[in-house]
Amino acid sequence: MDIKSVDWVDGCVRFIDQTKLPREEAYIQTTDYRRIGEAIRKLEIRGAPAIGVAAAFGLAAAVADPSIRSVTELHRIFDAAFRELSETRPTAVNLFTALNRMQAALESLRSSDITAMRARLLREALDIQSEDEDACRRIGELGASLIPAGATILTHCNTGALATAGSGTAQGIITTAARQGKVVRVYVDETRPLFQGARLTAWELMKEGIEAVLITDSTAGFVMRQGMINAVCVGADRIAANGDVANKVGTYTLAVLARVHRIPFYVAAPVTSIDHATPSGKGIPVEERSPWELTHVGGAEIAAPGVKVYAPAFDVVPHQYLTAIITEKKVLLPPFKRSIASLRSSSRAGRSNSA
Amino acid sequence: MDIKSVDWVDGCVRFIDQTKLPREEAYIQTTDYRRIGEAIRKLEIRGAPAIGVAAAFGLAAAVADPSIRSVTELHRIFDAAFRELSETRPTAVNLFTALNRMQAALESLRSSDITAMRARLLREALDIQSEDEDACRRIGELGASLIPAGATILTHCNTGALATAGSGTAQGIITTAARQGKVVRVYVDETRPLFQGARLTAWELMKEGIEAVLITDSTAGFVMRQGMINAVCVGADRIAANGDVANKVGTYTLAVLARVHRIPFYVAAPVTSIDHATPSGKGIPVEERSPWELTHVGGAEIAAPGVKVYAPAFDVVPHQYLTAIITEKKVLLPPFKRSIASLRSSSRAGRSNSA
Repeated sequence: MDIKSVDWVDGCVRFIDQTKLPREEAYIQTTDYRRIGEAIRKLEIRGAPAIGVAAAFGLAAAVADPSIRSVTELHRIFDAAFRELSETRPTAVNLFTALNRMQAALESLRSSDITAMRARLLREALDIQSEDEDACRRIGELGASLIPAGATILTHCNTGALATAGSGTAQGIITTAARQGKVVRVYVDETRPLFQGARLTAWELMKEGIEAVLITDSTAGFVMRQGMINAVCVGADRIAANGDVANKVGTYTLAVLARVHRIPFYVAAPVTSIDHATPSGKGIPVEERSPWELTHVGGAEIAAPGVKVYAPAFDVVPHQYLTAIITEKKVLLPPFKRSIASLRSSSRAGRSNSA
Repeated sequence: MDIKSVDWVDGCVRFIDQTKLPREEAYIQTTDYRRIGEAIRKLEIRGAPAIGVAAAFGLAAAVADPSIRSVTELHRIFDAAFRELSETRPTAVNLFTALNRMQAALESLRSSDITAMRARLLREALDIQSEDEDACRRIGELGASLIPAGATILTHCNTGALATAGSGTAQGIITTAARQGKVVRVYVDETRPLFQGARLTAWELMKEGIEAVLITDSTAGFVMRQGMINAVCVGADRIAANGDVANKVGTYTLAVLARVHRIPFYVAAPVTSIDHATPSGKGIPVEERSPWELTHVGGAEIAAPGVKVYAPAFDVVPHQYLTAIITEKKVLLPPFKRSIASLRSSSRAGRSNSA
């Protein structure tokens, strides 16, 4: 049974505070979109798909405010929440995809009845959630077919139930392949500075009964060199139209290592992570985090006081390093510019067919 | 003025407890070789050359025990100390080089006078210390000549005064080049799990007035990709006869990244780090450290409880990845098997000339 990292419960957004895991499973329930924004900024909610779902619920919560008495006021609150949520984190595109979809839902509504508007926005948010859940399942199935029997997989950061509305992206593949008896072991990069691998991925894998072996991020090269890895599976925060992938810092290093060691390098993400408007990785904004995340661990200072810090949260993997991008629609293969474009035209066709 | 990480003061071994740095500059003074062994095991004393010097002082302290009344007893204590110190850490070869040199000094002595034996062993230990100090100076000079003006350098772990008896190996190069006005900035890998980069290297560089920028180990690829690095300088714990280098885990990852980005990759080490008896990196024992070093930071548990851990302290860089090995004798260039062998024959010739 997957954890629901973000959910809609009793008219509130309910989320698990991921900064406290695995020490404590603390759930927070709120109707305040500002609290959702804060949770995203502070990484209480994290993982590109989960951020998208949380933002959608944040908008649904914003317009549910009982003090709203007019359509004008509802629009004003919606716009304020939209702005605030859109400024939380710049790199993961799912955030913007979800916000824009909520806006389109509001704009498409012909009724000017507040209750109808609220219902429409909540339905849209719940759709975004359940679609991500379905996407995870399908990504898991499609990706697992690429994993050989007896595989040892290396993963980075967290791409599991915590990071999504379902069973995860890269981790969904691992879990599905493990249920098929194909996964012997998973090497988990601890993922500095915030230890999402050590804290979250290791915890989720162990709950699933999958053997997780924790390594420091810099040990990845050595385990590959020793022939211990059959595939690298990671998620994505944003995929440009040419297939360049922004993901947790360190992913680029892994991609280079995988190439040199001739290990397949798989990126798993729902189509909501694809940013067709950005031609290449150069156009993806890379968030820089607070120096404090490097210099302190659990409140204790671990670095030389006053040292300068460069703390990009993400890096960008050029598409040339990818073996495949696994989406819920299909497994995208090189040349990615073409496979991504064809995905877009088929989904447009699909959308107009169903309209 | 360089810190003396390990020194002989008032008939005692005096060392700085590196596990407490930079929070606290705590010096420990002891005449007990067992305490030196403990310090090496616990990384209070660390850095391949510093470990060698500490082990030599440990043997000098062991035979200085005033309860020793006979030559037999001196030999017995020497042998016990030799054994204990040789079992502290398996990878850095300087430890064994220093211990063997002390043994040879004792065996070469014709006198069977206890006082003469003690004096001889202390002199040998002090020689090992001062030779390492000279070696650092010379490595710094030779290496700095390879650094271009306006350079930004990436380094890993700590190779400074703390790790040696002098100004450092790779860090000696950086410091010397910086004094020549050639170094703009140094990117410092934090070096998980024990943060030697964040704690020690950043602290030493800042003391020298050199701009240090701290990054997580996994960010190294991204800074190289952005063209921010002109050279990578690292130390070595053991260099095999073919030029394969064992060094702090993560060094192999850096070497691969440097190759892919066409960045010179320099290894700096005194000739005491060369192990002529080991043909290649395959023969170098790689120490595994306690899982606790990954799962805990400052006493706090940062990983999922009960997770398995793979914690090699070192990795091995195949010689093909090295641009040059900088020793105090000369800059070694590929093919390393030949340049290392020629270094050996010239030092043998030098030794027999001076005999």
